[in-house]
Amino acid sequence: MQTNPIEWRDGELILLDQRRLPDTIEYLRLDTAPQVRAAIEDMVVRGAPAIGVTAAYGVVLAARAAYAESPTDWRDNVVAAIADLGEARPTAVNLRWALAQMQAALPNVDPVPTLLATAERIHRKEIAANIAMGEHGANRIAKVAGSGTSGRTHDGVAVITHCNTGALATGGSGTAFSVITTAYRHGQIAQVFACETRPWLQGSRLTAWELKQNGVPFELLVDSAAAYLMKVRHVDWVIVGADRIAANGDVANKIGTYGLANAARRHKVGMMVVAPTSTIDLATPSGDAIPLETRSSDEVLGLAAARIAPPGSAAWNPVFDVTEAGLIDVIVTEKGVIDLPNAAKIREHLQA
Amino acid sequence: MQTNPIEWRDGELILLDQRRLPDTIEYLRLDTAPQVRAAIEDMVVRGAPAIGVTAAYGVVLAARAAYAESPTDWRDNVVAAIADLGEARPTAVNLRWALAQMQAALPNVDPVPTLLATAERIHRKEIAANIAMGEHGANRIAKVAGSGTSGRTHDGVAVITHCNTGALATGGSGTAFSVITTAYRHGQIAQVFACETRPWLQGSRLTAWELKQNGVPFELLVDSAAAYLMKVRHVDWVIVGADRIAANGDVANKIGTYGLANAARRHKVGMMVVAPTSTIDLATPSGDAIPLETRSSDEVLGLAAARIAPPGSAAWNPVFDVTEAGLIDVIVTEKGVIDLPNAAKIREHLQA
Repeated sequence: MQTNPIEWRDGELILLDQRRLPDTIEYLRLDTAPQVRAAIEDMVVRGAPAIGVTAAYGVVLAARAAYAESPTDWRDNVVAAIADLGEARPTAVNLRWALAQMQAALPNVDPVPTLLATAERIHRKEIAANIAMGEHGANRIAKVAGSGTSGRTHDGVAVITHCNTGALATGGSGTAFSVITTAYRHGQIAQVFACETRPWLQGSRLTAWELKQNGVPFELLVDSAAAYLMKVRHVDWVIVGADRIAANGDVANKIGTYGLANAARRHKVGMMVVAPTSTIDLATPSGDAIPLETRSSDEVLGLAAARIAPPGSAAWNPVFDVTEAGLIDVIVTEKGVIDLPNAAKIREHLQA
Repeated sequence: MQTNPIEWRDGELILLDQRRLPDTIEYLRLDTAPQVRAAIEDMVVRGAPAIGVTAAYGVVLAARAAYAESPTDWRDNVVAAIADLGEARPTAVNLRWALAQMQAALPNVDPVPTLLATAERIHRKEIAANIAMGEHGANRIAKVAGSGTSGRTHDGVAVITHCNTGALATGGSGTAFSVITTAYRHGQIAQVFACETRPWLQGSRLTAWELKQNGVPFELLVDSAAAYLMKVRHVDWVIVGADRIAANGDVANKIGTYGLANAARRHKVGMMVVAPTSTIDLATPSGDAIPLETRSSDEVLGLAAARIAPPGSAAWNPVFDVTEAGLIDVIVTEKGVIDLPNAAKIREHLQA
C-alpha cells in the first residue's frame, strides 16, 4: 500500500501530498516542471533534501518537454526551467545543490536519459546518506549522552525532535529522524518527544505519522513546552535537521530551533544537527548570510481551514531561524560526526 | 453591544464563552454553582483573576439554592459548594483566595445579600487593581526599557506578551494587558508582539481580539518564534501575567513563559510579571510546591474540531510552567513594583 513519498514511475514524478497528512494519503502525479515548482512552493513536498531530489526530477520533466518541442533547440528552455525551479524556496541550499548537478550534467544529445540518470543518482545517494547519518548519529549517542552532566546511557536516552526529518523530508530514511529510528532499533532510546512545530505542524502531522509507522513510541508537545520539559523531565539530546549550514557551522532550520538550542544549552542537553553534506554551503560564510523565508501570515492566523485569529490580524511568520555554531554540540553528516563545529572542522570534514 | 466578560445581572452570572472566540460572541447564563464549576473546568472562563471572581459569584448561587432549600440548614451545603468550586482548577491561587474570602463572609442569617456584596467587592477590587497595575507597569516601562543594554525609550518600546491577560482573564482591564494598553495610550509602545499560545491559542483567539478592541496594533507569532524574534528584531520587554507567585518570587504561568524568560535573559530583554497581590501565595515557599495542571492530550492533538495528529498519538500537555525568580526582572502588582523579586522584597511589598 505505502509507496515512497517521492517516486519516479512510468515517466512521471509521484509525490505524496504532505499537506493532507495524516488524514488523507493522496499521491499527486506531476509531469511538467511548473507543476514541480508549484508543488515545492505549496509544500506538497518539503524538507531540504526532499526538495533537492524533487527539483532534480523536475528538470527531467522540463528536458522532456523541451526536447519534444525542439530536438535541436531545447537547451535554453531547460536552463530557464532550472533557474525557475531554483526560486521555489529560498533557504534550503540542497535545492540549488541538486539543480547545479543537473545543469552540469546537461549533454549535447537528447538530455532526458542523462538527466534522469543524474536525478536517480541524487535520489539514491540521498537514501544511502540517510542510512549513514542514522548510524553515525546513533553511534554518537551511544558514546555519551548529551553534552555534559545530564548524560546517562544505561537505560536509554530521551530525545526531543522538532519539525519533520523523516522519509517525507528526504526521500530516504531521514536525517535526524534516521538517527532516532536507528538508535531506537539499537535499544538506545527510551523516550522520544516530538514538538508539534507550528505553524505548519510538521511534528504532529508528519513526524508523529512516521514515528507510528516505524513503531517508535513518542509524546507530542506544544513547541513552547520544550524548555520546560528540559527542566522537569530528563532529556539528553535535541536532534534536528538543517536547511542550510553555513561555512562556520551556523545552522538555518525550522523556526523554533534557535529557542530549543538556547534551552538545551541552559539545561546541558546535547544539541545535534543531522544533515547531508549537500546542506553545507561553504559559499555562505555565516548564518547572517542565509536568506530566510517568511511565509504568508495565513499559516499563523489559521490552521487548515479553521481561522483562529480575528479577521484583519497581522502575523509575523518566519519559517526558519539561525542557530549559531556555538550552541551546537554535534553536526552529523553521511561522512561522520563533527563535534563542536567551526569553520576549520567543517572544511576538513568536507575534504576528508 | 459589548458587555463585560463576567457580569452579575438579575440574579444570574453571565459569562462570555471564551471557547468560541473570536468567531462567535455568546454569553452563557449560569444559575447554579455546579454550572459555575463546569464553566471554570471547561474554560468558558479562564485567567487566574477571572476564575477567582467567577467562583465568588458561584458561591452566591450555591448560597441562594441552599437557603431556599432550608433557611436553617444551608451552611453545610454552601461550605461543600465552596470546596467543590476550589477543585475546578489547581494552579491559580486566586481561586482559593476568593473562596476563602467568601467562606469568611458567611453570616448566620440569609447568606445571599452578604455573599453577593462580598463577590461584588472582590470583582470591584479586581477592576481597581487592574487599573493600578496598568499605571505602575507603564511607569516602570517609562523609567527604563528592558533590563539592561537593549533599553531605548525615545521612540517607544517593543513588547512580547504571551497567553491572554486582558478583560477576559480578569474581569477588569487586565494584568499584563493593562500595562500594555496603558503604556500604549501614554505613547510609550511602538510594537506589540503576541504569542499565539498553543495549545488553547489564548494569544491568537483572545489577546488579538482584545488588542483590536482596544485599538492597539499588533503582530501575532507562533510561540517558537519568540526567541528568534528577540535575536533579529528589537524587543524591550516580555510582559506576562501569573497564575501563582510563590513566596520566593517563582512564577507559575502559562506554558511557554519559562522558555520566554530564558530567551529574554539571553537577549537582555526585560521580564515583567504583572499580577494582583491575590496571586502571591506566601504559603507556597517556591515554584516546586505549586501544583501544575496537565490537561487532556486532546488539546495538543487537535485544534477546535480539527484533528491534527494521527489517531492514537500521545501528547504531554502541561498547562503551566514555573519560571524561577532569578529570571524575572520586575513583578508589578496593584501596590507597585518589585524589582529583582525575592522572598524578603515580596514580604515587604505585601506588608507595605
